[in-house]
Amino acid sequence: MASTGFLSQEGENGRDDSDQSQNAPRAWCQAAQKMSGDLGSKLYALFNIGESEKTASASAKEVEGTTENCGCNKPCDCSKGNIDLSNLYSTDLLPASDGDQATMTFLQEVVDVMLAYIVKSFDRSTKVIDFHYPNELLEANNWELSDEPETLDDVLLNCRAALKYAIKTGHPRYFNQLSTGLDMVGLAAEWLTSTANTNMFTYEVAPVFVLLEYVTLRKMREIIGWPDGQGDGIFSPGGAISNMYAMLVARFKKFPEVKEKGVSSIPSLAAFTSEHSHFSIKKGAAALGIGTDSVICIKADERGKMMPSDLEKRIVEAKQKGLVPFFVSATAGTTVYGAFDPLITIADICKRHNVWMHVDGAWGGSLLMSRKHRGKLNGVERANSVTWNPHKMMSVPLQSSALLVREEGLLETCNQLHACYLFQKDKHYDLSYDTGDKALQCGRHVDIFKLWLMWRAKGTFGFEAQIDKCLELSEYLYNKIKDREGFELVFDGKPEHTNVCFWYLPPGIRYLEDKEEKRRRLHKVAPVIKTRMMEHGTTMVSYQPQGNKVNFFRMVISNPAATFQDIDFLIEEIERLGQDL
Amino acid sequence: MASTGFLSQEGENGRDDSDQSQNAPRAWCQAAQKMSGDLGSKLYALFNIGESEKTASASAKEVEGTTENCGCNKPCDCSKGNIDLSNLYSTDLLPASDGDQATMTFLQEVVDVMLAYIVKSFDRSTKVIDFHYPNELLEANNWELSDEPETLDDVLLNCRAALKYAIKTGHPRYFNQLSTGLDMVGLAAEWLTSTANTNMFTYEVAPVFVLLEYVTLRKMREIIGWPDGQGDGIFSPGGAISNMYAMLVARFKKFPEVKEKGVSSIPSLAAFTSEHSHFSIKKGAAALGIGTDSVICIKADERGKMMPSDLEKRIVEAKQKGLVPFFVSATAGTTVYGAFDPLITIADICKRHNVWMHVDGAWGGSLLMSRKHRGKLNGVERANSVTWNPHKMMSVPLQSSALLVREEGLLETCNQLHACYLFQKDKHYDLSYDTGDKALQCGRHVDIFKLWLMWRAKGTFGFEAQIDKCLELSEYLYNKIKDREGFELVFDGKPEHTNVCFWYLPPGIRYLEDKEEKRRRLHKVAPVIKTRMMEHGTTMVSYQPQGNKVNFFRMVISNPAATFQDIDFLIEEIERLGQDL
Repeated sequence: MASTGFLSQEGENGRDDSDQSQNAPRAWCQAAQKMSGDLGSKLYALFNIGESEKTASASAKEVEGTTENCGCNKPCDCSKGNIDLSNLYSTDLLPASDGDQATMTFLQEVVDVMLAYIVKSFDRSTKVIDFHYPNELLEANNWELSDEPETLDDVLLNCRAALKYAIKTGHPRYFNQLSTGLDMVGLAAEWLTSTANTNMFTYEVAPVFVLLEYVTLRKMREIIGWPDGQGDGIFSPGGAISNMYAMLVARFKKFPEVKEKGVSSIPSLAAFTSEHSHFSIKKGAAALGIGTDSVICIKADERGKMMPSDLEKRIVEAKQKGLVPFFVSATAGTTVYGAFDPLITIADICKRHNVWMHVDGAWGGSLLMSRKHRGKLNGVERANSVTWNPHKMMSVPLQSSALLVREEGLLETCNQLHACYLFQKDKHYDLSYDTGDKALQCGRHVDIFKLWLMWRAKGTFGFEAQIDKCLELSEYLYNKIKDREGFELVFDGKPEHTNVCFWYLPPGIRYLEDKEEKRRRLHKVAPVIKTRMMEHGTTMVSYQPQGNKVNFFRMVISNPAATFQDIDFLIEEIERLGQDL
Repeated sequence: MASTGFLSQEGENGRDDSDQSQNAPRAWCQAAQKMSGDLGSKLYALFNIGESEKTASASAKEVEGTTENCGCNKPCDCSKGNIDLSNLYSTDLLPASDGDQATMTFLQEVVDVMLAYIVKSFDRSTKVIDFHYPNELLEANNWELSDEPETLDDVLLNCRAALKYAIKTGHPRYFNQLSTGLDMVGLAAEWLTSTANTNMFTYEVAPVFVLLEYVTLRKMREIIGWPDGQGDGIFSPGGAISNMYAMLVARFKKFPEVKEKGVSSIPSLAAFTSEHSHFSIKKGAAALGIGTDSVICIKADERGKMMPSDLEKRIVEAKQKGLVPFFVSATAGTTVYGAFDPLITIADICKRHNVWMHVDGAWGGSLLMSRKHRGKLNGVERANSVTWNPHKMMSVPLQSSALLVREEGLLETCNQLHACYLFQKDKHYDLSYDTGDKALQCGRHVDIFKLWLMWRAKGTFGFEAQIDKCLELSEYLYNKIKDREGFELVFDGKPEHTNVCFWYLPPGIRYLEDKEEKRRRLHKVAPVIKTRMMEHGTTMVSYQPQGNKVNFFRMVISNPAATFQDIDFLIEEIERLGQDL
């Protein structure tokens, strides 16, 4: 068994040892018995993925004692107990003839591992992360690929190992990224999407998903405020690519000859975005052959909002230098401060100078779902294109990113190449549903079903409630720390999004008079606290410097699982881990 | 119930009517009883997703008759039967307090729907597709998004509907795309990936997956033949993006200033690829600001292989025109003919002219896993970059596409932008594992686990066996039709890959003497047969014209579920559906 080394070493995950593993009762029949009552803790006992402090082996033995046949504590004729995965290989699974029972057993085992992980993810007594340094993880285990196959039992061990070392991104105290949380309906939809295992290029191979993308994009455009939801759009593999699409389409709109003739055939371009904007704007400019130097960074005010006066000044300057301003990317919800650029004023400027207005709402776009907060995006309806990532604030599983374009047909004319082996023109159905030629990708992953299904399950009002709650939590955090000793906000004023940026000053630094020494030492505080958070596994929050500001914490809340108590915990944990610094 | 309209209309999917649906027994405890014996057919009866000719309702009633408590046919204390999803909403699921039982019930129901679908997918008596025209599908059902939530029961109805109308891409008679098949280990890995729900940008948030990507890419480079597997690489959202990466890196290698200064600052470029190559080369050139006119199409011979003499001639011509040849994309496995360009000769030419050699092995790269067939890619080790999509010939779930680059570090220098809020430089672990700045994407979906887990489960030898078998099937098809009346091959000679391209000439066309009339009528044959295939739902094969050749079938085999009998079926089905034309 090539992979035994994985788990036996630590004795705290998977099944405790391999003998026990092979005797251990499995099966849904047995699971049903145990799931009544205190389901969560019994799941730990049963599947025993986790920390050694759980009373795992005791409970497992208790279960074994009463086992007959398949492992349930009653006589039954279930044949599940007869399937021994330690003698089976992937070739015994479907499509092997008679592979259905082995397949059901194997997949159900995987499901059981996942269900246990899910329940643990929401349990605050579980670590957010069981952290190991890269060399430890690489050297301590055998992750190598070889010529020979493993048994299905070993495959399951691999599954357990992968989850053991994974970050619990659904954990109520995981605040590290803009995308957090684990939505049960979204997850179910992702499982189903994988099961359907198809591709978005044509209606022929993805009839339902193509229609659902159509329905959902139209709904999103309605919410943006475009009349009757008209326009166009596409789900892309992430906000950076959505922003790149926007820049690509904006360039094509102004100079359609660029598609055939390239950038050398058109005047020199200039794009504009605030100094607080996401790095994908520059990355896109580099890739598209425009060059990062052509992205002109506009000053932001101390709240991180683009200053429109500087935008207009720089547009005028660019024109004077013979450049053609073609693209302004305003940000609705900056990555660090959560700032919303003043969209109405920016729209006026774009109109005046005939420049494409893009709104990068990857992070903040979801506030459009909230009647209370959508005013922060006033003016978005005047944009030519909008990036909106439901995988962030709407907690849709990764990835779910949409680019919405106001002018219909532009995406297609910009990107299509009419490959006749994919987009035959003599098919028997309405070809307007073969949307694949809009995309830069050929094969495109089905990202739509999870968003659509969650929307059906929650309704727009459900998303709204979820978003409003996260914003309420961030206001609670802001109120808690604004006058708390040892905490200092990076900028004044209530958060507009859920971003709360702050320093924690340990007592040893708090009263230092030497400003430079204080800055120097403060810069090291957040990285050390973050290290300790990860080593303890109690919580995770991001930190970074910004401009001349030394390292500070950027707290964001997008996880519907978080509560007021989790915010309290975070503050106290930072104090606990940082007080000696 | 907003979504009732979905299913009630046809009465042949989901549960037959909504009353029955609510009374129908559910639960894993019950499932266990029924899965012994003839599992497949009992699953149909139980979950009843499918064609009305199945004896679904009879069996379902039989089950109901013996139901106590949870629905299993024995007395049991399982509490599953008490959970009624028709009264529950997504807000009753985790992270709701006490949401664990509802969550388990709901997720297990979804799993049951999927398991039934999976078993059906491999059943030849099931349709490949239950086809509906777009307007039928749009108008007949309610797919709209609304403000109010649905019950979890309705959510399940949506799941059933999505699968009902989906293509069974794992079906042994689904030959429509280069990516077919449904691998059970790969599927399990995808479910697990969704459950882990994280992002590839840093080791911090995806420790295991980042390491597995590292291990797998190195292994793939070893197989390509680069010394010690050295080099670089990234998994990208599909072959088109992998090819775009290659072009981007090639440009950067020759003119690194292009990143800041753009294409206008460098000489005019020329890229070269065969007339049979994938459209993504031109699409990439358009996006990267190079322009499609700069992609020079090289003649292919009648087997679809690039003609090296023409390549060299065109490179010389381009230089004479003052263009800088910077990129040759050779194809290993063309989309339509499955042709392999002569890589060794192309490598010599690229060396002579100092041009980056890319091999687009999206389709054919997987033949490197076969000792018998890898010789078709001789010379690939001399490439500067290689695209290789395990989601095609290795049947890894969508998407799994790698770009491999021979020179280490180039991807990172080309794409990095050092965003300090994501790639902090003062972290506590080895930062070389924070690979996110190599990517064009910011967030990047975890595409690695499925490939890695399948590789562990099968071993390299298992992939080899799978690939060899598909090639054997295509040779069988070739041998069967090469002298069969009514069939004509598009090009002579045994297939190099699994592509077999042919016309079917119905009796009414077969003996026509007027060549033009014959061509004209033959052009319409494949579309009509394809339409009938879809309407009958029996099989699916692609067709297209190419150059001056009228519509022909392009048969490809990448599905390990296919057998010799399925090939026989395909031929007879084409004859059956086309004989009257």
